[in-house]
Amino acid sequence: MPIITLTTDFGEKDHFAGGVKGAIYSELDDVRIVDISHSVSPFHISEAAYIIQNAYRSFPQGTVHIIGIDSGLNPENKHIAVYLDGHYFICANNGIISMLASEINPEKIVEINIHDRIDSNFPVLDVFVKVACHLARGGTLEVIGKPISELKELTGIRPVVNREANQIIGNVIYIDNYGNVVSNITKSLFDEVGKGRPFKITARTASFNKVYTNYSDAINFDLPPEKREEDGKKLALWNSSNYLELAIYKSNPSTVGSASTLFGLEFRDTVTVNFDAT
Amino acid sequence: MPIITLTTDFGEKDHFAGGVKGAIYSELDDVRIVDISHSVSPFHISEAAYIIQNAYRSFPQGTVHIIGIDSGLNPENKHIAVYLDGHYFICANNGIISMLASEINPEKIVEINIHDRIDSNFPVLDVFVKVACHLARGGTLEVIGKPISELKELTGIRPVVNREANQIIGNVIYIDNYGNVVSNITKSLFDEVGKGRPFKITARTASFNKVYTNYSDAINFDLPPEKREEDGKKLALWNSSNYLELAIYKSNPSTVGSASTLFGLEFRDTVTVNFDAT
Amino acid sequence: MPIITLTTDFGEKDHFAGGVKGAIYSELDDVRIVDISHSVSPFHISEAAYIIQNAYRSFPQGTVHIIGIDSGLNPENKHIAVYLDGHYFICANNGIISMLASEINPEKIVEINIHDRIDSNFPVLDVFVKVACHLARGGTLEVIGKPISELKELTGIRPVVNREANQIIGNVIYIDNYGNVVSNITKSLFDEVGKGRPFKITARTASFNKVYTNYSDAINFDLPPEKREEDGKKLALWNSSNYLELAIYKSNPSTVGSASTLFGLEFRDTVTVNFDAT
Repeated sequence: MPIITLTTDFGEKDHFAGGVKGAIYSELDDVRIVDISHSVSPFHISEAAYIIQNAYRSFPQGTVHIIGIDSGLNPENKHIAVYLDGHYFICANNGIISMLASEINPEKIVEINIHDRIDSNFPVLDVFVKVACHLARGGTLEVIGKPISELKELTGIRPVVNREANQIIGNVIYIDNYGNVVSNITKSLFDEVGKGRPFKITARTASFNKVYTNYSDAINFDLPPEKREEDGKKLALWNSSNYLELAIYKSNPSTVGSASTLFGLEFRDTVTVNFDAT
Repeated sequence: MPIITLTTDFGEKDHFAGGVKGAIYSELDDVRIVDISHSVSPFHISEAAYIIQNAYRSFPQGTVHIIGIDSGLNPENKHIAVYLDGHYFICANNGIISMLASEINPEKIVEINIHDRIDSNFPVLDVFVKVACHLARGGTLEVIGKPISELKELTGIRPVVNREANQIIGNVIYIDNYGNVVSNITKSLFDEVGKGRPFKITARTASFNKVYTNYSDAINFDLPPEKREEDGKKLALWNSSNYLELAIYKSNPSTVGSASTLFGLEFRDTVTVNFDAT
Repeated sequence: MPIITLTTDFGEKDHFAGGVKGAIYSELDDVRIVDISHSVSPFHISEAAYIIQNAYRSFPQGTVHIIGIDSGLNPENKHIAVYLDGHYFICANNGIISMLASEINPEKIVEINIHDRIDSNFPVLDVFVKVACHLARGGTLEVIGKPISELKELTGIRPVVNREANQIIGNVIYIDNYGNVVSNITKSLFDEVGKGRPFKITARTASFNKVYTNYSDAINFDLPPEKREEDGKKLALWNSSNYLELAIYKSNPSTVGSASTLFGLEFRDTVTVNFDAT
């Protein structure tokens, strides 16, 4: 059975997500709809990019992903459908897909041109659903759009490596449900630049000279519980998406605080890695 | 496959929505359950009315909609099932359905009378699920209730037109995920009263003399980006449900604010349209 | 069709829940995934225990329940799969299942041992999904783990009865979406200790000498509406899970306040029942 996923900033309350699901089932009885997220911050393109990049991989090949963020059609915000890594993505050409496309080349991009038949101020429902159902039925991209070659870039999301190759300057790209802070520094970039050298990671007042693979690795279970200093234990680790994450062990943002609040780190703030000279 | 939708004030955390889904699948294997919203404000009947009115239309004919808001059974709050516009609605007779029924006449209303067999303090799970599964199987309304003709009215939700037919006084009925403010003034009422005359819309400190069809229409894309005044651009538009909406272009309520916070408008506040004398 | 449910603290925004659903559909096409809750407070084991205990009962026999709370694998937090009351539960051995198991004996418990093949810092996706799909296909517990007999206990969740059997001291175990306060005192314990005697329930400043069965029972519908004192009416009742709940009639926590805020009651606070001497 084909799968259509939804990633939007519609929120959990309004009728928008429900309406979109109804419209899909009205077009196609034999389909699975999967909510990835409706709680992307309003118009927050890079949050959406991070979420879809990390969720899509788990789905079967051929899945159709609707991304409803900043999808109002205007002269500078066209609608596109992209085939990449065996998956279809339907969204506005506003940079959402560029984080994905920077790692894996899109095989095909079309600019959706079924709009002459549809006038709408709810394009996810009126346009994206039609395209998604067409693709879920096995239809081709060419039928609903004309091929283009350029994707709009999302600026400021790539870390910078200095000329001496001993420093990476990255940014906070996401803060997760536990208040943990995700940077745009990947393990592969870190390994490539660092070549196994000692390092120091700095972000505002916090610093780290070790990156763990699992949260629990930061705790010494050989010690008796009262000596472990679990509470508020800060750590850097490679998260499940292989990004450098600054975390507090078992944090709850609404009670004891989180990496974001305790380190004072927000979206776009700088995370720096300095490697020792060789 | 039959579809049962859920619109409730259960919230996203508690076990209530999960329990209801389990109960439906326990009765009926071959059914689709679609969450419309579980984040209606507690006991907020008119929010629920607005959400279900705008979501149900997208679903296929024959869909069964469970509305679990203020559904405690008592002498003044009976349970009903309604057939309207090809859809079934199961809810308490507390006004939720009256916003819908004011536009489209219900074909059939029954007061549910299977309660003598069910004693419950979780009626959505114990009563509404049974009724929904009965209808999803193709059962008739007469089997689970006795026909009635009167729906309880939701008061204060209709705009008022003055005697001279040059003024509409409406109210805020909903504030959406982007903080945009939805009034109960529909495009059809506006056109009928206004007859194309110039007008001024007033709501507290905000005023408007134009209503757009799309958010992007408020922006002049012929200007270079720095001259467009996109940030915080206020606008009135006909939203995707054809209600008069007061909005801020691309607003994010939790950061830069929204129409609701910037205009100081809350649920039930007045929105007035004055048309020029002819 | 087999059912797999999800109860996690992933929140509504992040990619985690979406990724888990994608992974399940990648393993198994013919399965239903049901979200019970993704809004458990981070690492809050007893909240999760309360939610799963009250949701699972509604599902058909054979349902597989994934509980993704505090599931990081470490020497003191092993992964288990439990067969209890006709249902499968997959979680960490951190006490989540002990509230359930204190009422109904597990028929089988295994410690999951497929980890030598899987190294992961997202065990719900990498380990629990594999186990869940195995069970959903009709596989046995023995294939994915070795039998154990002991479950880790969740401490401090059982009420205490005094020696004279005229007092129960319980605790707040959950605060629901309406701000109502749920204690760990069940109707069966209350009846067993109280034997029909008059009683007084005390929790901080609030006290009650009656426990209702339905919210509406607290209101006298024979009186005209203006004399009913519905607003802010406080009451004690047996909730739909048969726990003693302290409530405010039709409360909305974000506007008029709730039992939790008005009584000043939070998680773990004491709720005492004193029965009259016989």
